Amino acid sequence: MEEENLKGEEAFRNTSVPTSSNQITLRSVVTSFVLSVVFIFIVCKLNFTTGIIPSLNVAAGLLGFAVIKSYTVLLSKCGLLKQPFTRQENTVIQTCVVASSGIAFSSGTGSYLLGMSPYIASHVDEGNTLINTKSLSLGWMIGFLFVVGFVGLFSIVPLRKLMILKYKLTYPSGTATALLINSLHTPKGAKLAKKQVALLFKSFCGSFGFSFFQWFFAAADDCGFGSFPTFGLQAYNNRFYFSFSSTYVGVGMICPYMVNASLLLGAIISWGILWPWIEGKKGIWYDAHLPGSNLKGVQGYRVFIAIAMMLCDGLYHFFKILSRDCISGYHQIRRDQLLPLSNSVSPGDFDQDSNMDYDNQLRKEYFLNDQIPFWVAITGYVVLATVSTINVTHIFPQLKWYHIVVAYLIAPVLAFSNAYGCGLTDWSLASNYGKVAIIIFSSWVGLSNGGIIAGLASCGVMMSIVSTASDLMQDFKTGYITLASPRSMFLSQVLGTAMGCFLSPLVYWFFHKAYTIGDPKGSYPAPYGEIFRGISLIGAKGFSFLPKHCLQIAIIFSFSAVVINIIHDQLMYYETKYKVYRFIPNPMCLAIPFYIGGYFAIDMCVGSLILYVWEKKNKEKAKDYAPAVAFGLICGDSLWSVPAAVLALVGVNSPICMKFLSTAVNEKVDNLLSGGR
Amino acid sequence: MEEENLKGEEAFRNTSVPTSSNQITLRSVVTSFVLSVVFIFIVCKLNFTTGIIPSLNVAAGLLGFAVIKSYTVLLSKCGLLKQPFTRQENTVIQTCVVASSGIAFSSGTGSYLLGMSPYIASHVDEGNTLINTKSLSLGWMIGFLFVVGFVGLFSIVPLRKLMILKYKLTYPSGTATALLINSLHTPKGAKLAKKQVALLFKSFCGSFGFSFFQWFFAAADDCGFGSFPTFGLQAYNNRFYFSFSSTYVGVGMICPYMVNASLLLGAIISWGILWPWIEGKKGIWYDAHLPGSNLKGVQGYRVFIAIAMMLCDGLYHFFKILSRDCISGYHQIRRDQLLPLSNSVSPGDFDQDSNMDYDNQLRKEYFLNDQIPFWVAITGYVVLATVSTINVTHIFPQLKWYHIVVAYLIAPVLAFSNAYGCGLTDWSLASNYGKVAIIIFSSWVGLSNGGIIAGLASCGVMMSIVSTASDLMQDFKTGYITLASPRSMFLSQVLGTAMGCFLSPLVYWFFHKAYTIGDPKGSYPAPYGEIFRGISLIGAKGFSFLPKHCLQIAIIFSFSAVVINIIHDQLMYYETKYKVYRFIPNPMCLAIPFYIGGYFAIDMCVGSLILYVWEKKNKEKAKDYAPAVAFGLICGDSLWSVPAAVLALVGVNSPICMKFLSTAVNEKVDNLLSGGR
Repeated sequence: MEEENLKGEEAFRNTSVPTSSNQITLRSVVTSFVLSVVFIFIVCKLNFTTGIIPSLNVAAGLLGFAVIKSYTVLLSKCGLLKQPFTRQENTVIQTCVVASSGIAFSSGTGSYLLGMSPYIASHVDEGNTLINTKSLSLGWMIGFLFVVGFVGLFSIVPLRKLMILKYKLTYPSGTATALLINSLHTPKGAKLAKKQVALLFKSFCGSFGFSFFQWFFAAADDCGFGSFPTFGLQAYNNRFYFSFSSTYVGVGMICPYMVNASLLLGAIISWGILWPWIEGKKGIWYDAHLPGSNLKGVQGYRVFIAIAMMLCDGLYHFFKILSRDCISGYHQIRRDQLLPLSNSVSPGDFDQDSNMDYDNQLRKEYFLNDQIPFWVAITGYVVLATVSTINVTHIFPQLKWYHIVVAYLIAPVLAFSNAYGCGLTDWSLASNYGKVAIIIFSSWVGLSNGGIIAGLASCGVMMSIVSTASDLMQDFKTGYITLASPRSMFLSQVLGTAMGCFLSPLVYWFFHKAYTIGDPKGSYPAPYGEIFRGISLIGAKGFSFLPKHCLQIAIIFSFSAVVINIIHDQLMYYETKYKVYRFIPNPMCLAIPFYIGGYFAIDMCVGSLILYVWEKKNKEKAKDYAPAVAFGLICGDSLWSVPAAVLALVGVNSPICMKFLSTAVNEKVDNLLSGGR
Repeated sequence: MEEENLKGEEAFRNTSVPTSSNQITLRSVVTSFVLSVVFIFIVCKLNFTTGIIPSLNVAAGLLGFAVIKSYTVLLSKCGLLKQPFTRQENTVIQTCVVASSGIAFSSGTGSYLLGMSPYIASHVDEGNTLINTKSLSLGWMIGFLFVVGFVGLFSIVPLRKLMILKYKLTYPSGTATALLINSLHTPKGAKLAKKQVALLFKSFCGSFGFSFFQWFFAAADDCGFGSFPTFGLQAYNNRFYFSFSSTYVGVGMICPYMVNASLLLGAIISWGILWPWIEGKKGIWYDAHLPGSNLKGVQGYRVFIAIAMMLCDGLYHFFKILSRDCISGYHQIRRDQLLPLSNSVSPGDFDQDSNMDYDNQLRKEYFLNDQIPFWVAITGYVVLATVSTINVTHIFPQLKWYHIVVAYLIAPVLAFSNAYGCGLTDWSLASNYGKVAIIIFSSWVGLSNGGIIAGLASCGVMMSIVSTASDLMQDFKTGYITLASPRSMFLSQVLGTAMGCFLSPLVYWFFHKAYTIGDPKGSYPAPYGEIFRGISLIGAKGFSFLPKHCLQIAIIFSFSAVVINIIHDQLMYYETKYKVYRFIPNPMCLAIPFYIGGYFAIDMCVGSLILYVWEKKNKEKAKDYAPAVAFGLICGDSLWSVPAAVLALVGVNSPICMKFLSTAVNEKVDNLLSGGR
């Protein structure tokens, strides 16, 4: 695969590039739609469980290829094929799917929108007033997403030449996807792809089948494989168990080892040490009679310490990138110095390889071919921002027009900053920018005027712009390498955004009808709902309502998050021999299990373990096939949630409860059962 | 592996053969003892669960090799190795282990001895009198085994030249083991063996670990993986489920596909169709208020229909072989005609290969080298039979001296017949001969004089002789091919028999102290205990006590067993093109699940499935490694029963009960639990 890629455009000398209107075809739109539905389901499910979403670009590219390829092969066998399948078409599908699933993430049905709901508000005594809650309903959710979703597309589109051609930013995911698509469309690549797809299908079926099997044993809460006390009941009560989730095993196979290790470490620190210690202070630090999910009790420590770490981690990155951007503006010409800042592998570095001039020449030519005029971008942004301002103030009377105008004024700067950072490191910090927006606007509006809702809504406005902008730039990079026209990329992104804005609330609604989303002990705890609301509450009210000593502990943890980041960056910069920085945990990942516990971290570590053993056995094969297997696992399990949710909606309950009882309880139960007979 | 073997003795031209006294070394005796303990545990566990025991010769050879090889490699690294490890030594170990585990089977701790116990007798109202039960105790069990165990060794030892050299009988297991041992000791073979042993060790550890893991979830009956209603609760109640037993998955990988399919078919016929139908007649055919395990109820149908099928199958084979022996005596010189009767693959056929003259010459030479004089054999038999007669009448006053004398007079004929049949087909029918003995002697003595005990005890006398004799001949064949001296083989067999007679009752005792053996619904149902007692009861009393219509149904089934056998044999003889006979189920295998249900058949079919997929993927590798993996699975799981039994003895209970409740029952339980909090 590498060998083929190194040849770059040489391999495609005899292939013609379709015009931009021929890059978006009916079949690609249909395929995009189908895959969008699948991916939105997956992203929503991940949002509602842990909120950890791996990069799905590569999967979108691969599945798009699989669908269209089998379609064209079928047609050409019947002699009906008119238009060959090109890599540009493939890129367009991938872009559309990534855009729509990106909206599924930034739509906040698992974070800021969910945080508005009265159900989440009921977990928190403070701020649970009428003006500070808003019942979620399909109508306004779709409307809100439509008015805020498209603004981001126009925010930095004029800057694409600067980012792609002048700065030559890496965009690791985008480049990787482009390389995959290129290799899929070279003869040897297609053979590999066939095997990958076959494996993906197998692991998909296995994962779907296993989830189906699991369903039969989960008649109620605390039943079934999802509550399997793998390490004993004591560990289970502290949320340490292998939950048999093939989704998270797959996610673990995709995520870097350090992410999984950080999650596990975070789980051990919090659920292994910190919470048991705090629970020992029951009745001293907090009221012993509070229900488990009340934020005044131990749950408060969980939520706010997690928030503190995430927020400080976000702020650290925010200021780091802002300052870097300033420096980079200054040293623009000496941009090479910036590259060591990139903290991820950069497959795009091949641009600097020798005899790549032909490739770059060709790419530049196609990239500059179809223009999106500057005035279109500016007009688009202003018009959309105005429409959005009017509508958002209607949906959320808590936000005044000037709040939104301010948001739209600073948004392009943040969008640029994020797109730039993402180009270097592949981390989109959109949700961090969103959190900053929450703090700013909730404190500006104030609790009594509906500051919580205002904060969360402004988070939506900000996150949509920032996230969409960096996705767009990522896709431009992909298109640049696959010679797709920027105009068709843009159109495809618009299409994908529309699909996402429409489908995400629908999928949320589907899950919402079938399950209780946001129940910390249920199957769909959706941690970010409560966390985002908590952030907004802090903004609106300050720290006064926290349980005893919570603030102090939170400060210690947020301080250590910053310290960890500093150590990481310093090591990366100065200690290049052993690369010790690779072993510094990620503070964001440390914080997530603080809220939800360690079970998904254990699932993900199992994924890591599988990958590790596979790599030990055959590095080459693992590299080629592990992502396919992982995506198969994720897709299969996630898609089973559709029939599962349908069954739940129809009221069909699974027939068996696989229950785990301690020996003592079991005796009681046996007495009951033998007596009942 | 095959290539190396084809060269036969050529490969060993430079290797010297040790003298017979050097073939039995201290290290081989110690290794034999250790492995004997392991194998006796395995055989006992299998006896106490389903009574299906796969051929363990190959495993004994391989493990013996692994132990001594690692020992010698270790010593030679330290420069301390004096005596190299020879294949003759390996054969001696294998022989000893097979002999001792053979005793574990023929000792009847899972069949005729168990059938004497008051606990099994309490399941059957009829014949539950003092004279017809005998409490099992270590003392008399070891004594009984010692006096009857060695007689068989002398019974046909003079005939070895006739069987091995003149008839050139195949003895598939013995030949396969010999070929394995030969190949282990050629350079390439050792490499393969290393890999096999590594894989065996891995699957051993996996299986042991999994059983260990399972233990934690099995706090009580109906808890844990062993009661996993894989196909739903309805199917579970009819004993159809995958019981997660790695032992039986491993056994399934070793047994022929047809055996596993027959077991499954038998389970479907009985537990799927027949028993539900009979249970529908509850209150009409039998008293509806009887406990589930009472032989007057549905359990009676289970036991007696199984007995009828097994008995008729046994009688069919008995008479078939007897008549074949008569014919063969007549047509001795035209023995080639007999070979088509063999119904299993015959790896020993290579004897007829070209340029094998050198091998045969050499083998004959070594085989005739160390003689066991004829008078020793005859004297030994007479002396031991006399001692045995005196002792057995002491242990079982129900048997008179003339009964035993008769048994010892006809035994050598049956022993020869069985050894001959085993040489052709690899099936030892020892337990069938035992069943015939039960019927004869129990009806001779009569119920009021303790006919049940007399029948069962005479079964022990007969089975020991018949089974030991065929094992011995099998081992002579192995020794013949590996150039081991017959005298050392005989000595090793004597040693193994002694170990077996001593260890089998001890292991029984160990299990007996920790669990209830013979409880049809427990982990150790030991089906043959009740079945053998049932046979003895029929002999002593006739069919009068059976529940309604049981006799008719039993006659239908036993008749069909004979018909199936006739069809099988006729097809095998006359239809050689498609070999349809391979798809005719085995009546004995059909009958076993009638008593215990389908769960172990499903486990075994999973083993078949694994083997099938593996063979599809890589036939060569599957052939080389599947047995190693299978033995690893069996050994690991079976050895876990040791610590498990110890824990049970010490009173340590597992902490969790994984329980499977229907949705309705689960609600009740949840009410209890939330109320109890």
